[in-house]
Order: sequence, then C-alpha cells, then structure tokens
Amino acid sequence: MDIRTLQAEINQSLDALNYGEHPQELYEPIRYIMSLGGKRMRPLLALLGYALFEPDYQKAMNSALAVEVFHNFTLVHDDIMDEAPLRRGKPTIHEKWNANTGILSGDVMLVQAYELLLDIDNQHLKRVIRKFNRCAAEVCEGQQLDMNFETRDQVGEDEYLNMIRLKTAVLLGYSLELGGIVANASEASTDLLNGFGVNVGVGFQLMDDLLDVYADAAKFGKQVGGDIIANKKTFLLINAMKRAKGKTKESLEHWLSLKEFDKAEKVQAVTEIYNELGIKTLTETKMNQYFDTGLEQLAAIEARDEAKNVLRNFTVQLMNRDR
Amino acid sequence: MDIRTLQAEINQSLDALNYGEHPQELYEPIRYIMSLGGKRMRPLLALLGYALFEPDYQKAMNSALAVEVFHNFTLVHDDIMDEAPLRRGKPTIHEKWNANTGILSGDVMLVQAYELLLDIDNQHLKRVIRKFNRCAAEVCEGQQLDMNFETRDQVGEDEYLNMIRLKTAVLLGYSLELGGIVANASEASTDLLNGFGVNVGVGFQLMDDLLDVYADAAKFGKQVGGDIIANKKTFLLINAMKRAKGKTKESLEHWLSLKEFDKAEKVQAVTEIYNELGIKTLTETKMNQYFDTGLEQLAAIEARDEAKNVLRNFTVQLMNRDR
Repeated sequence: MDIRTLQAEINQSLDALNYGEHPQELYEPIRYIMSLGGKRMRPLLALLGYALFEPDYQKAMNSALAVEVFHNFTLVHDDIMDEAPLRRGKPTIHEKWNANTGILSGDVMLVQAYELLLDIDNQHLKRVIRKFNRCAAEVCEGQQLDMNFETRDQVGEDEYLNMIRLKTAVLLGYSLELGGIVANASEASTDLLNGFGVNVGVGFQLMDDLLDVYADAAKFGKQVGGDIIANKKTFLLINAMKRAKGKTKESLEHWLSLKEFDKAEKVQAVTEIYNELGIKTLTETKMNQYFDTGLEQLAAIEARDEAKNVLRNFTVQLMNRDR
Repeated sequence: MDIRTLQAEINQSLDALNYGEHPQELYEPIRYIMSLGGKRMRPLLALLGYALFEPDYQKAMNSALAVEVFHNFTLVHDDIMDEAPLRRGKPTIHEKWNANTGILSGDVMLVQAYELLLDIDNQHLKRVIRKFNRCAAEVCEGQQLDMNFETRDQVGEDEYLNMIRLKTAVLLGYSLELGGIVANASEASTDLLNGFGVNVGVGFQLMDDLLDVYADAAKFGKQVGGDIIANKKTFLLINAMKRAKGKTKESLEHWLSLKEFDKAEKVQAVTEIYNELGIKTLTETKMNQYFDTGLEQLAAIEARDEAKNVLRNFTVQLMNRDR
C-alpha cells in the first residue's frame, strides 16, 4: 500500500462516479470541477484511517469519495463568495458558467456527498452522518468567520486559530475518523484519529501562512507574498501587529494603509518587519506544537504497523514541504 | 386533530429549534427566514402522512421539520438566483444581508435538514435519506430547468409539466411518504402517498398558473397577470402559443415581443387571447386530471378513517381556492 496507488484508485473511482445527466447545465459543472484533480488529501486520509485497522480499504472507498465531493462543494461555493477566478489553475465554475450555476451545482454536490455516505452499514450510519453534519456546519462557520475577519480591524490569535480549525482542519479530522469508524475501530481510536487530523490540519494552515512569505519562489505554485499584498490577517500579520512597537509599528501600519504601492516593495518591507520581530520562528514554534500534538495522538492509536507507517510518513512528508 | 392545531404545533416546534449561535452572521439569517411563517404545508403533509397510520404524530415532528427547513433552504438559494427582493412580503436574505450570506446560511440549512432526519429509527434511516437525496437533487434539477426555460424560445407542454413536478411536486410527495415511512406503513401505502403528493402538487402548480390570470384581484395576494407581464412560459402561455393561428398568433407574438407596454393593457389583451383559445378550460381539465389521479391514490390507501378525512378535506379545500 503506497500513497500513489491509493491516489490512483481514488481518481479511478471518482471518474467512475455517476453524478447525473439531465439537465446537463446542472451536472456538467460537477464533472468539470471534480476532474480538475488535486492531491485528493481527504479521501486519502479516509482510506488510510480505515487501513489502520483493516486491510481491505476498498470497502471505505465510497466514504472516502463522500469527503472529496463535500470538499469540492465547499470550494465551489467559497470561490463564488471570494470571487476567485481560478481553481487549480482553471476557471472556477462561476467564471466558466455563472454564479447561479455554481450555487445550484454546489447544492447537488452536497446532496451527493450524503448519498455516498449511505454505503456505510446501518450500525454506523447515524453516528457517521451526525458527525458529518457537525463537521459540515463547522466548515461553514469557518468560512463565515474568514469573511468576517476581512472587514474587521483586529483579529485575535485565538480567533484566527479557531477559524482555520473550523474552515480547514475539522474536515481532515473527520476524514480520518470516518475511515476508522467504517473499519469498526474503537471510539478511543477514532477520537485520537480525529484529534490527529485536526491538529496537523491547523499546523498545515500555519505552514501555508509561512510559505506565502518564505517559500522558494521557484518551487512555490503561487505568487510569494500574496497574503501581504492583500493585507490578509494571517497568523504572521496578527502577531506582527501585536509585537510591533514605535517606528516598526508605524512602518507596518503605513504599508497596510497604502491603497497604491509597488507589490514587490511592500512584500519586501513587510517581510523585513516580520524578520525583525521574529515572526517566522514564532509561527514555526506554534506550527510544530500542533504537528507534535497530532503525531503523539497518532502514535497512541493501536493499529496495523504497516498502515500506521504509511500514514505517518505521508504526514511527515507534508510537514517538510520546502520553505 | 385539525389543521390549525397541527400548524400551531409545527410553529411551536420550529420556534424551539436551535439552529446555532456563533458566528451570528451565519445563524441569524436562518432564524429570520424560518420565522417568516407560511402555511407550513410540507411539515403538515408529513404529520398527516404519519397520522394516516399512527395517532401519535408528535413522533414524526422532527422529520416534518426537516422538510420545512429543506424547503426554506431552497427558497433562500432560489431567491438569490431569481434576484427576488421579497419573500412572504419581507426582504429576502440576500437583500437584507447579501448574496454570500444567503449562499452560506442556505448551505447550513441543508445540513440541518439532514440532522433533523437523524431522529428516525435506524431501521428506516437509510431508506429515508436515500429518498430524501433523490428528492433534493430533483428539486435542484427543477430549478435548473426553470432557469433554462427562461432563455429558451420554445418549451413543450411535457417539458413544462416535468419541470413543475421536479421543482415543486416531488417534495410534497416526499413529505407525505416520509410521514408514512416513519409510521411503519407498507411500501405499497407509502408509494401511493408519494404519488398522491406528486399529482396534487402538479395540480396545485397548474392552479397557480391559472390564478395568476383568473384570480379575483381583491382576494389574490399578488398582482394579477404577473406571469403575462413577465412573458413567463406557464402552462397557459405554452398552450396558447401552440393553439394560436393567423391574426391571433400575430397578436400574441406582438405582445410577447414588446419591450415597453402598458401592463394592464397587455394583461387584458393576452387574457382575451387565452379566452378565445379556450386555454382556461384546457388548463382546468389538465389540473383536474392530476387532482383526480391524486385523490384516487389517496382513496386506495388503507388508513385510519379520521386522519384520512382530515388529509382529504385539507387537500380538497386547497383545490377549491377562489379562482
């Protein structure tokens, strides 16, 4: 069992899904967005969560697809709200068609996620759907908080950590837990799996915040400094605002207040302020706390050694992305 | 057991629902839209569907609330797509807040509908959710077809009947069937209940088409002729286009092509064309066919006499709205 094989099997199973046909204006956008690829991280975690306890991970495939379809539903609706033109380098649904198509096709995708969950045995079904509902509502809460923060002057560190937990981490936790439940794992184990996913999920988001500023431009898929240019209240900016004093504070506030500026100049100036304030180390320390807590939770799960190593290595590899 | 008591109990139960608190930007719009009232037709049908077989209809209350929350979710998203400013005489969510709020609060409402369905016993849960998923996807298909028809030159009668079946009737059928399933009714009975709901649902929509043109203005809540003013391809217009010949056809096409016109004049002119072509009788005949088929299906269900009479009388009363 290796990650590439699992990814290939997930993609095969996704390709074989019948989302629906008529009217094609409703179903074509679903096929489009689902075909854009991506790492398929969430279904991978669901299969790996299952494989910790049982070898025949194909039995968890439909549950794994459910979280991938759900995740893509959130992307479709979030992209409308964020007016994002591109997703994985291709036009978003609302750009290629229109916002109404994005709303309605997204709605059907959410329904289809529930349909895929129905593959689960009756004994686990109610628990799985109850936890899925909680997770889905939390993802929406995270998106709402993210939008709220855009128009607020100040956001606290704890508020920010809670927002990224809801918006991105809880679904990673749920995906792993789901796999465990389908494999009949004990509640102690599935709770640990959920905690592991949530903690490394928050860590990954902090890593994204770091990479935005400190990534190697040659290897980074996006423009370095995009968050700085947009004044996005990331973990870095929130802490810089808190730590900055005197001239440094004036300078930071000056750059944040400018309506027109040279992008490269602003990125360089704000990065220098971050460096002066030790923001990189601060963020790395916080990120590593989340990673460590998560890995401890994984270590505490009694599971099949081979699968546990695959999951551990996969996660650790993601923790060491170039930065 | 009478309708007003049931409606009062539904409203009480809705008022007691805890949709969520934080962030309030997400949950306040849900409380707002759910508090705007309405006939609560769908939860009523769910309770009546249950009461056909068992007296303690309170046991079906959460299922009944699920279809009401789902219905309101579709209204929130449809109102964004249709750019509707008002719902039940009050500002729509996207008007009172904004479209993003409407999208995201609507998403959470769909999740909450599933959560309410989890009140159902494990033995029925998978079947209930599978049928709910089918119904929910069909409602989205109906909305997509409705939007498609707006920009099409021609729509066939069968296409139109299929669209209104999907957009509005299948949820009435599902609501009744759901009540029956929760009451452990036989599949033969719940199939008949579904058919009854779908048939009277299509009939009600045809009645709406008729009322738009032939309602008593003093008793009608909306502007008489709204569909005519908007060139809406209702059952009436679709059939008038098919039947009109020579000068009548020219006149109808003339009114449809005008960008600027006196509203009252257009309504009067098109209504006269409908009268000349016998469109009212044609539509009434079709509507009554659906009503009759539905009532035959209801009659064929073996059920408690009292509840069956309440359901029958309620439906027949709705069939005889002033027109």
